[in-house]
Amino acid sequence: MKTYLDCISCFVRQGLDSARLVSDDEQIHEQVVRQVLRLAVDLDMSQTPPAMGQKIHRLIRELVGNDDPYRDLKKQHNRFALELYDLLEPTVHSTEDPLETAVRLAIAGNIIDLGVKTSISDSDIHKTINDSLTAPFDEAMVEQLRSDTECAQNILYLADNAGEIVFDRLLIEQLPTEKVTVVVKGKPIINDATMDDAEFVGLTKIVEVIDNGSDAPGTILETCSQSFRDRFEAADLVIAKGQGNYETLSDSDKNIFFILKAKCPVIAEHIGCEIGDMILCHNPSVQVNQRKDEYYAKR
Amino acid sequence: MKTYLDCISCFVRQGLDSARLVSDDEQIHEQVVRQVLRLAVDLDMSQTPPAMGQKIHRLIRELVGNDDPYRDLKKQHNRFALELYDLLEPTVHSTEDPLETAVRLAIAGNIIDLGVKTSISDSDIHKTINDSLTAPFDEAMVEQLRSDTECAQNILYLADNAGEIVFDRLLIEQLPTEKVTVVVKGKPIINDATMDDAEFVGLTKIVEVIDNGSDAPGTILETCSQSFRDRFEAADLVIAKGQGNYETLSDSDKNIFFILKAKCPVIAEHIGCEIGDMILCHNPSVQVNQRKDEYYAKR
Repeated sequence: MKTYLDCISCFVRQGLDSARLVSDDEQIHEQVVRQVLRLAVDLDMSQTPPAMGQKIHRLIRELVGNDDPYRDLKKQHNRFALELYDLLEPTVHSTEDPLETAVRLAIAGNIIDLGVKTSISDSDIHKTINDSLTAPFDEAMVEQLRSDTECAQNILYLADNAGEIVFDRLLIEQLPTEKVTVVVKGKPIINDATMDDAEFVGLTKIVEVIDNGSDAPGTILETCSQSFRDRFEAADLVIAKGQGNYETLSDSDKNIFFILKAKCPVIAEHIGCEIGDMILCHNPSVQVNQRKDEYYAKR
Repeated sequence: MKTYLDCISCFVRQGLDSARLVSDDEQIHEQVVRQVLRLAVDLDMSQTPPAMGQKIHRLIRELVGNDDPYRDLKKQHNRFALELYDLLEPTVHSTEDPLETAVRLAIAGNIIDLGVKTSISDSDIHKTINDSLTAPFDEAMVEQLRSDTECAQNILYLADNAGEIVFDRLLIEQLPTEKVTVVVKGKPIINDATMDDAEFVGLTKIVEVIDNGSDAPGTILETCSQSFRDRFEAADLVIAKGQGNYETLSDSDKNIFFILKAKCPVIAEHIGCEIGDMILCHNPSVQVNQRKDEYYAKR
């Protein structure tokens, strides 16, 4: 997915929000905003939005002088989500269709995203969990996911954020784990999950976990390690969590299921859904997306 | 009021919204966004936000090749508001305190602002009118306005938008009109009222109307004509409508009553109110505002 003009004001706002989250220094906030503006003036709009996110957060880490300013928040989210895991794991097993319930909960976990929202509350998360278990949802797509995971030999699960990966674990446990490899980011980027998080939440004990070598908030293949690219090439099924992975892989011709909550109007329009919708969609929607791109350009 | 870092993403978004409103040409939309970014990179944050608005809309008018791209919309809003006038004028007279009712309706009229919102609906306006007649409101401030307008010899009423000036007319009719001069913008800027609008809605028949010589979406004295500045200096009471006039005159030491609906979080925080609140406030809050500025800087 390319960058839309609508994304640019969001880059500026997110840059400021992130700077405030990781530093109390007003001068740093202003430096971040002005540098984001400078980057945006000559922005290549054919790039995906996370390419800009990657640049913005490199800048923030450099200005703040901290290579992982979200470290403590990621830990908090992991701990909080692990407490929920103990409640939710029996829920998955007690339902008629554990796979569907686990997909729904994986989407609920996608609310824990500091890239979009700077704060979350306990009550927000409990409400999201309850809503996600009953909200309208493309159940036929769950059947397709079930069938594809049964046939596939080599499944890559591209994780999104810390905390959220605990919810991903609920879903991964419903998949044929011997065929699944979970992918985390290669370096700290916002609150995206890295190997530390995968270990902390126990994922590494139940499934192979690798990192993609990149610090992009999504999966920009050119910025990933060769070893990850080889694994991506070899996979016959990819499950990609969150908006960042959707934005960076929606034009891929791989067999990809995207799992996310549509949080921004540009992505909702690109997918053809409403903001807040729970999305499990499959990639042969590539052609649909291309038509949407044309539609969007004419808006 | 200075420009806050929070304003900058809003400049970019408003530039894009305005470009889309006045042109279907995607290339112009992109040119506007990139030029706004260029202007913002070196922005003097001690300027008021409307100083940037003035630059952005000069740019849009130049790129679109139209010196008044909001002309038709302003006419629509004037006509629509005049239909409402016939309903609202008897309402003002039938209430216990016509001045308070007229102030409330003048604030309701402040919803008609394309600078903040790109579309309005009939039902939105009727709801705003009904809400404005009953919403919590600083009634003691109405008494101060009543007393000050009785004592004043020379009242300037700084108008805001087309359409809205019909609602202003309801209030102006409750003031000692022989002492009132209404001020409109000197040149077209967004949907702000100019002399054409004042004539169209019949204001020029009931009160003196002058223009300020400027194309800023507010009252930036340095960009106004000398004749307006002399009148401003000579006035012993100023009534200033809308956010743009608040942003540009909140630091003035003149005797000013601001009448507005607080539409953005930065202004709501500056005033010390909630977004959506109906505001009638007096300028000796200058000191309060300065304290707020300090508070805001530390956020």
